[in-house]
Amino acid sequence: MDISFVRCKNIEAFLRKRAKMLKLGDHLTDAFISEHEREQMKAQLSLARDLLDHKKCPGAEYTGWLELPLSVSEAELSEIERVASDIRDNFDILIVVGIGGSYLGARAVIEALSHHFMAHLPAGKRNGPLVLFAGHQISPDYMHDLLEVTRGKRVALNVISKSGTTTEPAIAFRILREQLFGDLTDQALRECVFITTDRSKGALKQFARETGLTTFDIPDDIGGRYSVLTPVGILPIAVAGIDIRGLIAGARAECSRCLAPLSEDWTPADRYAVNRMILLRKGYKAEILASYEPSMRFVTEWWKQLFGESEGKDGRGLVPIGVDFTTDLHSLGQLIQEGPRILFETVIRFEKTRHDVMIPSDSRDIDQLEYLAGSGMAEVNEQAVLGTALAHTSGGVPNIEIVLEERSAFCLGELIYFFERACALSGIMNGVNPFNQPGVEAYKRNMFALMGKPGFEWLRAELTNHSVTS
Amino acid sequence: MDISFVRCKNIEAFLRKRAKMLKLGDHLTDAFISEHEREQMKAQLSLARDLLDHKKCPGAEYTGWLELPLSVSEAELSEIERVASDIRDNFDILIVVGIGGSYLGARAVIEALSHHFMAHLPAGKRNGPLVLFAGHQISPDYMHDLLEVTRGKRVALNVISKSGTTTEPAIAFRILREQLFGDLTDQALRECVFITTDRSKGALKQFARETGLTTFDIPDDIGGRYSVLTPVGILPIAVAGIDIRGLIAGARAECSRCLAPLSEDWTPADRYAVNRMILLRKGYKAEILASYEPSMRFVTEWWKQLFGESEGKDGRGLVPIGVDFTTDLHSLGQLIQEGPRILFETVIRFEKTRHDVMIPSDSRDIDQLEYLAGSGMAEVNEQAVLGTALAHTSGGVPNIEIVLEERSAFCLGELIYFFERACALSGIMNGVNPFNQPGVEAYKRNMFALMGKPGFEWLRAELTNHSVTS
Repeated sequence: MDISFVRCKNIEAFLRKRAKMLKLGDHLTDAFISEHEREQMKAQLSLARDLLDHKKCPGAEYTGWLELPLSVSEAELSEIERVASDIRDNFDILIVVGIGGSYLGARAVIEALSHHFMAHLPAGKRNGPLVLFAGHQISPDYMHDLLEVTRGKRVALNVISKSGTTTEPAIAFRILREQLFGDLTDQALRECVFITTDRSKGALKQFARETGLTTFDIPDDIGGRYSVLTPVGILPIAVAGIDIRGLIAGARAECSRCLAPLSEDWTPADRYAVNRMILLRKGYKAEILASYEPSMRFVTEWWKQLFGESEGKDGRGLVPIGVDFTTDLHSLGQLIQEGPRILFETVIRFEKTRHDVMIPSDSRDIDQLEYLAGSGMAEVNEQAVLGTALAHTSGGVPNIEIVLEERSAFCLGELIYFFERACALSGIMNGVNPFNQPGVEAYKRNMFALMGKPGFEWLRAELTNHSVTS
Repeated sequence: MDISFVRCKNIEAFLRKRAKMLKLGDHLTDAFISEHEREQMKAQLSLARDLLDHKKCPGAEYTGWLELPLSVSEAELSEIERVASDIRDNFDILIVVGIGGSYLGARAVIEALSHHFMAHLPAGKRNGPLVLFAGHQISPDYMHDLLEVTRGKRVALNVISKSGTTTEPAIAFRILREQLFGDLTDQALRECVFITTDRSKGALKQFARETGLTTFDIPDDIGGRYSVLTPVGILPIAVAGIDIRGLIAGARAECSRCLAPLSEDWTPADRYAVNRMILLRKGYKAEILASYEPSMRFVTEWWKQLFGESEGKDGRGLVPIGVDFTTDLHSLGQLIQEGPRILFETVIRFEKTRHDVMIPSDSRDIDQLEYLAGSGMAEVNEQAVLGTALAHTSGGVPNIEIVLEERSAFCLGELIYFFERACALSGIMNGVNPFNQPGVEAYKRNMFALMGKPGFEWLRAELTNHSVTS
């Protein structure tokens, strides 16, 4: 594969100035995986890489994400930035309407990189509109409350759906359109509604065309859970004030590394995928993704979709579980340490924090913390990472570590591409199609039938013989 | 056991006016569990009930929660309400400092019953202070941002820790005390710091005594994860403006039902516990708790601690997993439908929503939703619950439903007691001590050693031969 890339302003500068790249630390798996086991997996890894990189794997028609970071163009980025800047200048709130891959990626990056209490900051300190979400479930109470807080505010919508007929976002868009913009002419609507959808077909595309709305394209060859670096993710991310060029630069760095030929030094993604497959075949049933930064919660949610939807089929797959540490050391920690030995753990660690907060001295030392006086929280958190990894390993939980330099757009870009690549390789090695999701239709079909959607009468009759509560 | 109860204002009124109680729907497990299997578990259930109700089970010294809803007194509730009312009148923000059971219960109830966008509401519409959390992890970036949004606000602290030396809340309390109240006299500190701790001993108790602070007691015979209906939970819950008498009344209703002698009609808690044990013994490894109301997310987190920490020991236990539907039907849905067949699912459903939002008509029907025009979101969400349960059952995932009348304090009280009871019975039937958590110490010990805490030098030497990243 050709790994030259399209030139974009600033991105080369990002790449030049980076010294540290994403690292994988897996020597705490030594008690669980021998080096010869990895060596024996090399042929399978090599095959999976070939199938993926030559687009001959199952689901190859959805591998457009593979070289995306290299091929994104200056024109695309400038256009996203221009629209994002307009939204930032003219609105108090952007509501992103989407579900699954049209929701989690943007939310993951925005929450990972923003202030922890964005909603509590005065508008002046916030430096841009609030980004809220809708259409990711069907709760009327949530929608009611959302409408209440948007009253009197300048609200823009970014509606994201490939087909435009996915139930949850379609319902939300109907309601928000009527409640927020019911009186507007098409002309006025064009100022506040932005559509991200298929480039040529589907309900949203048709609506946008008829109304004259600005649209952004979801590439045909990229599925929802792999779409965060397309306009699906980067438009709302840019509206939140995050540097999308840094994000793309990080993904590009990791992409270049991953697409280089397999050498003696495996890439972190190769090694992560192989470790996962070895542990799966040894009987581990679930992988826990842990972070010690609470803002990473939705990165974990995004990871759960990426891996769960890619691997969980044909009766197989690792169950992806997310935890926030140290919080959940006081919740699931007991079970991880001493419960059923079917878990392994992957930890995302940052080498630098953005801030540090010193622990003050108190000579009375009632709380017995005086030995920490003068230390920063960052150092304590760092020791918690190490102490926990050693404790869990002793308890029989293999521990893998992904090390990022800092909580920045660049490092998030690296992490996203790393996980996408490792996920695809894992799925191919496990013999599934990592790019389809046939099982997602089952509940939709039932819901359509129960709601009386035309064309589903046959199923309705069958289902209404059941009811959940007797 | 005597099930008469201490009289409290309003609580009897709540109980009188209730017709519908919490229900368990498990007929969608029919393809997985035969009625004779449950019948064969009756002796074990009966034994577990006897051991629990006569306080002869492992960990019996921590079963004070068992009759707590019946024994809470008017004096205790009035005192909590009085202090909560003072805090509500005089502060913009209450920061609750706690971790694990000193954090999750309050947060669960507050988020379940509050406006979805509390932080976005203008103070006037909020009807009370914002409740924020600290001391539930060690992120310096989180602490930095929290300090930033508290600047210039009137802030109160509720510090919750039995010992007062748990690292995370102790660090947060040192920092917040210095940063927010560094200049205050003890006299002034008494107005804004409230302590919930052991009734007689420990660091926080000593600090409170020396400084003259208001304290609330954590009963000796109730562990953290069972403490939400003690002052640990109900003080912050009351500050958030939630009716704690309704909460206690709901718990009392469920408690009365659970403590009545075992009859032919098992209680929902009995039946839930037995279903869980049967599925565990058939090889299911993990239980998914699902809700279709996003505000229930922290109830799920609370449930994960309750069950994970109670059952996950001695190499056994079900792995508790939380999902928010329909959101996660577009994330973990694929894996639940078609992945490894080791999962069963428990769904919390509400019979009534607080609001409904109508789906408007659009004669163009580009989104193919016109068949829903005029329906409410509540009805669509309800059909999603049923459609999903049927789809997952067909896919090999046993489905259990917990039905609550509405998203109210009363129903949350019922649910909390129901889960506590079912969890204790499950653990006893599985042969573990459901009330200890020996595995939580492992990471703490390592962290102390790595941080150089006096007394841990022996371990430090051992651990520093390791490091996570090579």
